[in-house]
Amino acid sequence: MAKKSAPTARPAPTRFELITLGDELLLGRTPNGHLTFLGEQLARRGVALAANLVLPDDAATIAAEVARSWKRSAVVITTGGLGPTCDDCTRDAVAEVLGQRLVFDKKIEKAIASRFAKLGRPMTDNNRKQAWRPEGAEVLPNPFGTAPGLWIEQDGKLLVMLPGPPNELEPMWNNEVLPRLARRKLVGRSEAFVQLRTAGVGESALETRLQPLLAKYPGVEVAYCAHAWAVDVRLGWGSGRIAEAQVKQLVAECTALLGDDIFTIGNDSLAETVADLLRHDERTLAVAESGSGGQLASVFTDLPGASKFFQGGVVCYRNSGKVIMLDIPECLLSQHGAVSAETAAAMATGVCENFVADYGLSITCCAGPGACCEGKAAGTIFVGLHAPEGVWCKRLEYPGSGSAVRARAIVVALDWLRRELLRAHRAKPVVPAKQAKAAKSAKLAK
Amino acid sequence: MAKKSAPTARPAPTRFELITLGDELLLGRTPNGHLTFLGEQLARRGVALAANLVLPDDAATIAAEVARSWKRSAVVITTGGLGPTCDDCTRDAVAEVLGQRLVFDKKIEKAIASRFAKLGRPMTDNNRKQAWRPEGAEVLPNPFGTAPGLWIEQDGKLLVMLPGPPNELEPMWNNEVLPRLARRKLVGRSEAFVQLRTAGVGESALETRLQPLLAKYPGVEVAYCAHAWAVDVRLGWGSGRIAEAQVKQLVAECTALLGDDIFTIGNDSLAETVADLLRHDERTLAVAESGSGGQLASVFTDLPGASKFFQGGVVCYRNSGKVIMLDIPECLLSQHGAVSAETAAAMATGVCENFVADYGLSITCCAGPGACCEGKAAGTIFVGLHAPEGVWCKRLEYPGSGSAVRARAIVVALDWLRRELLRAHRAKPVVPAKQAKAAKSAKLAK
Repeated sequence: MAKKSAPTARPAPTRFELITLGDELLLGRTPNGHLTFLGEQLARRGVALAANLVLPDDAATIAAEVARSWKRSAVVITTGGLGPTCDDCTRDAVAEVLGQRLVFDKKIEKAIASRFAKLGRPMTDNNRKQAWRPEGAEVLPNPFGTAPGLWIEQDGKLLVMLPGPPNELEPMWNNEVLPRLARRKLVGRSEAFVQLRTAGVGESALETRLQPLLAKYPGVEVAYCAHAWAVDVRLGWGSGRIAEAQVKQLVAECTALLGDDIFTIGNDSLAETVADLLRHDERTLAVAESGSGGQLASVFTDLPGASKFFQGGVVCYRNSGKVIMLDIPECLLSQHGAVSAETAAAMATGVCENFVADYGLSITCCAGPGACCEGKAAGTIFVGLHAPEGVWCKRLEYPGSGSAVRARAIVVALDWLRRELLRAHRAKPVVPAKQAKAAKSAKLAK
Repeated sequence: MAKKSAPTARPAPTRFELITLGDELLLGRTPNGHLTFLGEQLARRGVALAANLVLPDDAATIAAEVARSWKRSAVVITTGGLGPTCDDCTRDAVAEVLGQRLVFDKKIEKAIASRFAKLGRPMTDNNRKQAWRPEGAEVLPNPFGTAPGLWIEQDGKLLVMLPGPPNELEPMWNNEVLPRLARRKLVGRSEAFVQLRTAGVGESALETRLQPLLAKYPGVEVAYCAHAWAVDVRLGWGSGRIAEAQVKQLVAECTALLGDDIFTIGNDSLAETVADLLRHDERTLAVAESGSGGQLASVFTDLPGASKFFQGGVVCYRNSGKVIMLDIPECLLSQHGAVSAETAAAMATGVCENFVADYGLSITCCAGPGACCEGKAAGTIFVGLHAPEGVWCKRLEYPGSGSAVRARAIVVALDWLRRELLRAHRAKPVVPAKQAKAAKSAKLAK
């Protein structure tokens, strides 16, 4: 690997391989979430995984493949195979490959014993097996399980063994592994890119708009990642062919150019952004859905502390529900149909008024074959928005599978509400009650 | 591989490897769904994948690893890397490994051209690249995309190349690949196991109950797979150490022993089972949720044709919503709290009556830190069921993350409704209107 004079202190590219162990992965019972998690974590710090190998719980296979990966890589990460049952054999396989003896670690045993004592359960001999480690291994504590992680440096290379359960692996990665990798300059000290998250603009339209700016900054790494009607743009300096400060300047120019089409710089979701705007201005929301069937409500109730702004939602699948729960006149439904602009507007108004919220958001759509569409094409979506200033609706067509139509409808609805909240905020800035109170107290104190 | 005298005509175990290609997998942007899909598909037919290798879009790496897999396996399956862009280089790599020339296939070109014509878009030279294939390859048609699959037999081995998009790969697997594999006896002609899906019984309790039966059938392959409060048991004959007929006899004994604890034999979900019961007896359902925030409604609205039985749902996150939308008396909420047996029952009744449904199902729970729990421990769940015969509620405690609590609450609610529907069906069999009409017509015709 040729080293160029890098304007920043990024680490030289280093070969990382990931070995994920477990029969359940190969039998298709569990998705390989470790690849998704660790792949993204490394990418954020400027490292692209060179390969991922998924292997069964078989000692000979594991030993052979770890040996091969160890030979050609600078860093090998293994996940799983550290548990107490007899099919967990990674520890032995790795010790063999590295030519290290296994030693019994009293400290690990003590940590496992105290965990069992806390849970009020007896410790078995199986669990004691987890206290063996290769003699050169450093122990990574596991506050959420019995199997510790292991960190082994040898011959200028690194082998990291992580436990299989995601709720044990992920905190260990964040608290133990990532800081150590950064200290050894194997990954960047911070993210090697800035992520602009946009909504409401197609991928190719976005590329066209950004192209003149990007052309002014040769060396910047550009990656687009399109979701349903939302596109992320990552602008990176991981290659070392451009300075971080220059990319930050480019980000400022992109931000000025795209304006409200960017909903966040960073990792927040569209729903989190909308929630922040609602909370900031102390506004509340209620939602009504038919075709999206509860998924619009879920995006908010999945957020911690949603009860601060989310009043609730109604899923009305049949016209009778729309009439009773949302006070939609029957004649409106029979004249215009359940999937119509008129119904979307009436749903938004009904749910907003019935839940006594500031904003009402509605989706009614033909999500695909099998859905009742009253002659409308599958993929027809109507979104309704009831705001303090009035009620509007939007129509869009999106041919695709039922789940793709629903995902698209939700992004369009969230993005519309976001833009309306921004507009309202700028038109008449709300002073939240607490801030107003604090300002008043401060005045009085003077 | 030693062949024993197998009582059934199962194929001898054969080494299958899967190579999934794509930078987006290694960067953690896309989960490796092909492993989950193909791993499960093969497992159902008695084959356990020996390994899965995830590689970047790099010709040299692909060629080296395909060569290695080809050397040691009987069947190699590749996914991705067949697209028109320049980073798709699998076709060339594979031809090189097999020592085959690439030939231009006029038939493939014609199929691609007619696809573009249908879409009304011009065909580019890039797309024409997809018409090249190794000379010995058989073409697997792709009705959902431009890249055809390729089926290559050489030296008594098999290499199958599949396109990356799941909506292209999955139909091609089902319609082209699986039947061919079965004809060549590389996989079983049908599933090599029977799956019993249970709910309401813990995994270890289930094992204890089944153990005496299983002991009578040595050679049966038993696999448990636990989800939230639902456990699947697979009883298999893939090893050839027991005859299929014997396993079917065991299944009959297990079914008799477990009774209603089994919700289905096969692959249907709990929600599908409940939906079938509702549709069969022409009953309707409405749901009310607080902590589960729309997810209970989603499990039904995700099913095709849900409007036949699903009236709708209310997500009420604040007490005001419960009062207004579900007619719950304010004094009940202030006396017992939002997370209480009384509120769960009132929610089920309110939503059932307001939506004019036969059954009302409710969940109110403390889904975890950040949720408002009025002094109740996180993980406290109340489920309410309003049926024509009365209204009841259930309390359960499940310490876990917010999403685990929600998943558990939904399974408990669905399973309770399922058992009540079975009970009602047996107590007073409903003759659906259409059947009654048909019976009457038949009588009249006599």
